Amino acid sequence: MRIPPQHPRYHSLLQREKIVEAFKKGIVVPQGLIAHGRGECFDYLLGERTTPPAMKAIEAAAAALLLAKHPVISVNGNTAALVAKEVVELAKAAGAKIEVNLFYRTREREEAIAQLLRESGAEEVLGVGEDASATIPELFSERRRVSPRGIYIADVVLVPLEDGDRTEALRKMGKLVIAVDLNPLSRTARSANITIVDNVVRAMPLLLKKVNEFKTRSRIELEETLRRYDNEEVLREALMEIWRNIERHVREGLLIEFPK
Amino acid sequence: MRIPPQHPRYHSLLQREKIVEAFKKGIVVPQGLIAHGRGECFDYLLGERTTPPAMKAIEAAAAALLLAKHPVISVNGNTAALVAKEVVELAKAAGAKIEVNLFYRTREREEAIAQLLRESGAEEVLGVGEDASATIPELFSERRRVSPRGIYIADVVLVPLEDGDRTEALRKMGKLVIAVDLNPLSRTARSANITIVDNVVRAMPLLLKKVNEFKTRSRIELEETLRRYDNEEVLREALMEIWRNIERHVREGLLIEFPK
Repeated sequence: MRIPPQHPRYHSLLQREKIVEAFKKGIVVPQGLIAHGRGECFDYLLGERTTPPAMKAIEAAAAALLLAKHPVISVNGNTAALVAKEVVELAKAAGAKIEVNLFYRTREREEAIAQLLRESGAEEVLGVGEDASATIPELFSERRRVSPRGIYIADVVLVPLEDGDRTEALRKMGKLVIAVDLNPLSRTARSANITIVDNVVRAMPLLLKKVNEFKTRSRIELEETLRRYDNEEVLREALMEIWRNIERHVREGLLIEFPK
Repeated sequence: MRIPPQHPRYHSLLQREKIVEAFKKGIVVPQGLIAHGRGECFDYLLGERTTPPAMKAIEAAAAALLLAKHPVISVNGNTAALVAKEVVELAKAAGAKIEVNLFYRTREREEAIAQLLRESGAEEVLGVGEDASATIPELFSERRRVSPRGIYIADVVLVPLEDGDRTEALRKMGKLVIAVDLNPLSRTARSANITIVDNVVRAMPLLLKKVNEFKTRSRIELEETLRRYDNEEVLREALMEIWRNIERHVREGLLIEFPK
């Protein structure tokens, strides 16, 4: 399907088509499609733009990635479908490992996602097949498998589009977790140390830009950025953005009028 | 998958299973799964119940259906998956035609949906194959095809789960459009004459009940119900419901804490 660029929902529809395309290739599962829809809803409410609290979280995330000894970017099906190229660029800029980490893990999906990442320029992709041999405590079945060279030893983990159980498990292991989640009320958003309440498609290029910008800063400056960061405040501000957006719609009038 | 009835998300998970089931049967498309996710999110924000503004819209919709000369219920994949039986019962109670109207139209899907509707008791299903021979102006490709005995000549069209483009096109043709949409900010919600901001699973049985109840009312009474109805007010009240739910979350505290 070709979407005309002047369509009022152009960007949203384009992302939707990307997710459906990836679904057909076995990268995204049906549950991932439903999850994408849930994200669309919050993006709507946020005004489909990067808000000031999201920018604060992006800056803190850039600082955390640059300060990390073993930063890892955890990639699932939806993340690969939407921002494979950006993940690879960010990993290079931040000196981070890339690891495939799936809720519905099958060898075929792992391989399909790893291949997409390699096509996007990744030199190394962890968490595929035998490499996912370490286990995260408190999680069951295939969901707990991680790479002993990746998430298992990481001090900072960036989890775009992660589920609540795993975010909580990573926190309990003492890791600094950076989440990208459009729902400021989700368990992931409320469990992470730094929650970027933004669409991953907008957040990842901005995070890459900030990492490159912050490279000239001293460790002391970066530590100060991280120290000043307050995730509860950021989540509250994100909810206020939703409220202001709703208010604006009400003020500007909700109805689309038609001639009688 | 068996979901225990005491699960806190029982009703929501049951609907999700129905949609995934219908997806496997070719009734729902991948985009329908995404749309369902979007709905889940708004339903969550609305508290997963029929709100007072939704009840107002349901009453106006019942009046509009009973006053109509040619009422039509437009059915897409998600609607058929969730409320096929309720659509048939409502059509009988309101003397409305049922028409299959798909965004992603293929002969196989039309037939699968029509069959499901017939299995649910429908005697006639319009908009399948050669019957969808009329066209709606301003829409492109297969999306504009409608039945000359259905939507084309309808004065009142009930569109559960419709997209914005088509809702707008129907309004431009001068039709009274009743939408069921969980997103009070969607173009569909803002374009329709009457917007029921509710889950179609809850709204349809209530609409059927109101139609049966209003049958004893005079045309003058029904016209008065319709005249007093204010869709902008109803959308504003629906947004207030969302806001009150968000406010409660903020009050109860956002962060999930972990030991350092």
